Amino acid sequence: MSQPKVGVIMGSQSDLRIMKEAAEILEQLKVPFELTIVSAHRTPERMVEYATSARSRGLKVIIAGAGGAAHLPGMVASMTTLPVIGVPVKSSNSIDGWDSVLSILQMPGGIPVATVALDGAKNAGILAAEIISTFDDEIASNLESYKKELKDKVLKTADAVETKGWRAES
Amino acid sequence: MSQPKVGVIMGSQSDLRIMKEAAEILEQLKVPFELTIVSAHRTPERMVEYATSARSRGLKVIIAGAGGAAHLPGMVASMTTLPVIGVPVKSSNSIDGWDSVLSILQMPGGIPVATVALDGAKNAGILAAEIISTFDDEIASNLESYKKELKDKVLKTADAVETKGWRAES
Amino acid sequence: MSQPKVGVIMGSQSDLRIMKEAAEILEQLKVPFELTIVSAHRTPERMVEYATSARSRGLKVIIAGAGGAAHLPGMVASMTTLPVIGVPVKSSNSIDGWDSVLSILQMPGGIPVATVALDGAKNAGILAAEIISTFDDEIASNLESYKKELKDKVLKTADAVETKGWRAES
Amino acid sequence: MSQPKVGVIMGSQSDLRIMKEAAEILEQLKVPFELTIVSAHRTPERMVEYATSARSRGLKVIIAGAGGAAHLPGMVASMTTLPVIGVPVKSSNSIDGWDSVLSILQMPGGIPVATVALDGAKNAGILAAEIISTFDDEIASNLESYKKELKDKVLKTADAVETKGWRAES
Amino acid sequence: MSQPKVGVIMGSQSDLRIMKEAAEILEQLKVPFELTIVSAHRTPERMVEYATSARSRGLKVIIAGAGGAAHLPGMVASMTTLPVIGVPVKSSNSIDGWDSVLSILQMPGGIPVATVALDGAKNAGILAAEIISTFDDEIASNLESYKKELKDKVLKTADAVETKGWRAES
Amino acid sequence: MSQPKVGVIMGSQSDLRIMKEAAEILEQLKVPFELTIVSAHRTPERMVEYATSARSRGLKVIIAGAGGAAHLPGMVASMTTLPVIGVPVKSSNSIDGWDSVLSILQMPGGIPVATVALDGAKNAGILAAEIISTFDDEIASNLESYKKELKDKVLKTADAVETKGWRAES
Amino acid sequence: MSQPKVGVIMGSQSDLRIMKEAAEILEQLKVPFELTIVSAHRTPERMVEYATSARSRGLKVIIAGAGGAAHLPGMVASMTTLPVIGVPVKSSNSIDGWDSVLSILQMPGGIPVATVALDGAKNAGILAAEIISTFDDEIASNLESYKKELKDKVLKTADAVETKGWRAES
Amino acid sequence: MSQPKVGVIMGSQSDLRIMKEAAEILEQLKVPFELTIVSAHRTPERMVEYATSARSRGLKVIIAGAGGAAHLPGMVASMTTLPVIGVPVKSSNSIDGWDSVLSILQMPGGIPVATVALDGAKNAGILAAEIISTFDDEIASNLESYKKELKDKVLKTADAVETKGWRAES
Repeated sequence: MSQPKVGVIMGSQSDLRIMKEAAEILEQLKVPFELTIVSAHRTPERMVEYATSARSRGLKVIIAGAGGAAHLPGMVASMTTLPVIGVPVKSSNSIDGWDSVLSILQMPGGIPVATVALDGAKNAGILAAEIISTFDDEIASNLESYKKELKDKVLKTADAVETKGWRAES
Repeated sequence: MSQPKVGVIMGSQSDLRIMKEAAEILEQLKVPFELTIVSAHRTPERMVEYATSARSRGLKVIIAGAGGAAHLPGMVASMTTLPVIGVPVKSSNSIDGWDSVLSILQMPGGIPVATVALDGAKNAGILAAEIISTFDDEIASNLESYKKELKDKVLKTADAVETKGWRAES
Repeated sequence: MSQPKVGVIMGSQSDLRIMKEAAEILEQLKVPFELTIVSAHRTPERMVEYATSARSRGLKVIIAGAGGAAHLPGMVASMTTLPVIGVPVKSSNSIDGWDSVLSILQMPGGIPVATVALDGAKNAGILAAEIISTFDDEIASNLESYKKELKDKVLKTADAVETKGWRAES
Repeated sequence: MSQPKVGVIMGSQSDLRIMKEAAEILEQLKVPFELTIVSAHRTPERMVEYATSARSRGLKVIIAGAGGAAHLPGMVASMTTLPVIGVPVKSSNSIDGWDSVLSILQMPGGIPVATVALDGAKNAGILAAEIISTFDDEIASNLESYKKELKDKVLKTADAVETKGWRAES
Repeated sequence: MSQPKVGVIMGSQSDLRIMKEAAEILEQLKVPFELTIVSAHRTPERMVEYATSARSRGLKVIIAGAGGAAHLPGMVASMTTLPVIGVPVKSSNSIDGWDSVLSILQMPGGIPVATVALDGAKNAGILAAEIISTFDDEIASNLESYKKELKDKVLKTADAVETKGWRAES
Repeated sequence: MSQPKVGVIMGSQSDLRIMKEAAEILEQLKVPFELTIVSAHRTPERMVEYATSARSRGLKVIIAGAGGAAHLPGMVASMTTLPVIGVPVKSSNSIDGWDSVLSILQMPGGIPVATVALDGAKNAGILAAEIISTFDDEIASNLESYKKELKDKVLKTADAVETKGWRAES
Repeated sequence: MSQPKVGVIMGSQSDLRIMKEAAEILEQLKVPFELTIVSAHRTPERMVEYATSARSRGLKVIIAGAGGAAHLPGMVASMTTLPVIGVPVKSSNSIDGWDSVLSILQMPGGIPVATVALDGAKNAGILAAEIISTFDDEIASNLESYKKELKDKVLKTADAVETKGWRAES
Repeated sequence: MSQPKVGVIMGSQSDLRIMKEAAEILEQLKVPFELTIVSAHRTPERMVEYATSARSRGLKVIIAGAGGAAHLPGMVASMTTLPVIGVPVKSSNSIDGWDSVLSILQMPGGIPVATVALDGAKNAGILAAEIISTFDDEIASNLESYKKELKDKVLKTADAVETKGWRAES
């Protein structure tokens, strides 16, 4: 694969269950990426190293997923000027996901994190592709095709429901 | 000003109180932008027109602010492949901001909105600049300077507290 | 079936699990209806078409179900003057249903959505029938019978509990 | 005024501060209505009388507003087959409005209440007019005009912001 | 059994799963009671009859359990001067129990409901016995014995944990 | 005043602002009571003394108000078999009252607290009177009169609104 | 084992499922401790005895776990000047853990409880060790080793993901 | 002042309004401390330096206050084995304090933060003193005196209420 443009990181291997959806959609949209584990709380030096070297290593976007008191996305954002996308993960120690969401979303003025829905790793991948698409027409075109697929899938199910009836399809 | 790269829209003029902070920081970071009012619920055709023409008009990022059942960011995102940044506004008809946050953040798979903190228009502007900076070195450099200013301001207040004492500074 | 008076739509086929309860009760109350899939985010043009043509096609009420950042009911309401009933669906990507509820309920002034309980598709169907009943005496009479059934069912269980004892019936 | 088609009731005179917005918009849309105080908890017999006689008195829709443990809309709905619109009022004894919203919205199967936003009395009036409009073309036409006004107001503010600049208008 | 002193009612037979715990503890504490189904929304006349006749029929306390938009406890309280104990039931249509709790707890000034914990039917029974115990020494004595049992059970498990070790007992 | 039947206690003098409403209504209903400050956290021995001696001192009901992590009602309930009414106070250190409500309401099995609405001290007084009324006909009669007053007040405001019009009365 | 420095208590044997994690980590870190059951509501005298004798018995820290209206940590804290660590347990009668968290965390001024995450008994054990480590270098050293283990585990999973690929490890 | 034993830090000067209460109580309890500004997001290197050098500089406890997505307490805890006390500050950009609370409290296994109540800086100071008191008898004695003062203050207000009457004191 060519030089990674997106870095996908997460606080723990247990987040991979959710975060692999970012990897899958980036592959589908043909956006080169790298993926690894970086823990804000257990490997803080590694996090500093990752965040501060990201731009010079050629990355354009960082996707960071974490759960509970989720500090990884915000701390990475504090140490780079690249856009950082945060994925709140509903981990086992989370209070219904509210802690993950709020500790990623509610960043102070000056240090934004582009937050997506709870467990929304797939959308994080698409958002990263949209960012790349602002200067890469091929990715923009891949996104157009992807959107068309989404639409066609809905139209197909609509057609099935209308012709076969709601009882058959539910 | 040169060709706008960022489109800043909001559902109502009353949101301008918050959303002007996006305009101010974009000016400071020297990112060309445009700003107007587009209501998802009161001018749906205008919203469709705005969203579908955005990429061809040269915009790279859209910042959309709205409150309550805030549909503007998500609906615009459904009609473009540009990155859309959503600003949940704590409007007067909002339940402590929770409705604004959840109706922007919790987008379904396929249609991401890059959500920032409640009333976080300033961070929306910075995030837009970060996205532009992935292909524009001047903006990247402006962001570095901005981050340095933030840091220097903290160091200065830290110094004041340490030398004059916490009682004097509180 | 005669000309549909109620249009039942939902954002995704996965909502049919809940939304079929609207269809079932409308059948029982003998209110003619149509049912299909319309996604605010994946098929926005289809949604515009559906909403703007609804009144002229003879519909009297629209029931719209969606989950997460649920924009379908509100966006349809923005493009018609027919009453729109919103059903918040507790979809798999929802935060305990709060996002679905708030993004349907908290509509801004001027654009109401008649919101029912979380997963309350059955009540949406009854509410649609009540609206039809304001000008259709047969439906009013069907509703009276339905209410009487509800009452009789409670009286029967009350009688069972009182005669056989709570231990037997729990 | 001609025979009232909408009955507007509320649990306490203190709710009139909010509920008068329903009256004002019904006047503007030329929908004849009546308005009074009916308390579920302090005048239960009066509530029974009001609800059970509503249809025979010629009412088509009931709008009921209440706050805290708000039982009025649901109890009225249990005693009529007319559509009942519930307005959750953020009264002084409410926990941020959540109690008002949940005790109106979350009705059990069989007894719907068409719930609008917290303090959304204006939308309750519009929703009532939309229901009347399903069999009254004049009201339908008034609603179309009203929607056009909403749109024109947004377009005018958009124009002002675009021509005079966001700084002047904020 | 002698003349019932406590009336245990609930909105639906499905609540019996929880509400039977009130019956069990009342039996254990030797407080005579009656139990039946009364729905605020499906049998409002029956509820009026039950509430208004309760004192004259010799009842001293009413325990009412309901879920979702739970109006039964509050409506019964509005029609009697007997103490009414409300049990919020986490029914299947409830949003994590919050609706049940708030629509029972947050009664307006003048009409109290003695609310116990979510699904706390057992405590409702004990509270009813405590109320009876204010004028009935035998019940007071039964309550003392019950409290002693609770304490002895804890002391026994504490002893087991201390002697056998936490590993053995967990 | 004759022998107190109700003991009104609160965790801090700052709660008196709310808790005096219990005192006022008890006076109005002619229920003899005593009132003092007892802090669970600052005077635990005093709390033990108060709770364990309450029944023998002739009290029939204890009303306990507290805010934040409000332990007073539950701890008193753990040391008496008298009914204990808990008033969650929205104190200055409370998170919108949720902590006060939950730490009073959610008592474990065996130790009920009769919880009233947030800041619902008036209802606590009425509930205490209702409990006394189960064996005291004079208090029962006072409660009947009080309920009638509530009803008459509503009927009077209803009459004013109907005759003078909603505009005049809002 | 030598003289216990940490006392681990909990309100009920059912909490042992969670609280044993405190015991396990204290063993691993070689901090001597004792563990037993003390219920605030069922054995208040035992709680008083435990709390007031703790310092003189040589304990340095108390860890107290409880769920629902969780009064044990705060009440123990009110009767000792030792640091008390509170573990909110998501017990079966808890509303998603919010009651446990708020009734432990929101202590009034003067009586702190060091609260850890919901079900965070392991962290309570580590925090107790950290407190002991302020005057015990061996425990400080054990904590350093423990932190290094945490870090090494993350680095190992990171290495596995990077070398074998995210697909293999998810 | 002698060698600081407690380090009090906060994310921004605006937190000093709350955090000075920690300083005041530490002074009163005669615990030597230092106080400064350290921002996790604006001065991450300074935070690393502060946290990693704390133990060797002789600190025994760190108190860290922050609001919104509050990462300072958790990040400092990740880089030291000293006990870290977190103070959730209800800053202007916070959603009613929930974000501050959850992003400090819900730390993952291995990295505890001793969390106190929202805006509970005073209790953070007392908790720090309690930790110091485990090896410093003078501080233990100061804490005993402080607790006695709290108790005496309550007894005095109780006496005033009992002798002068609740009406005079409210």
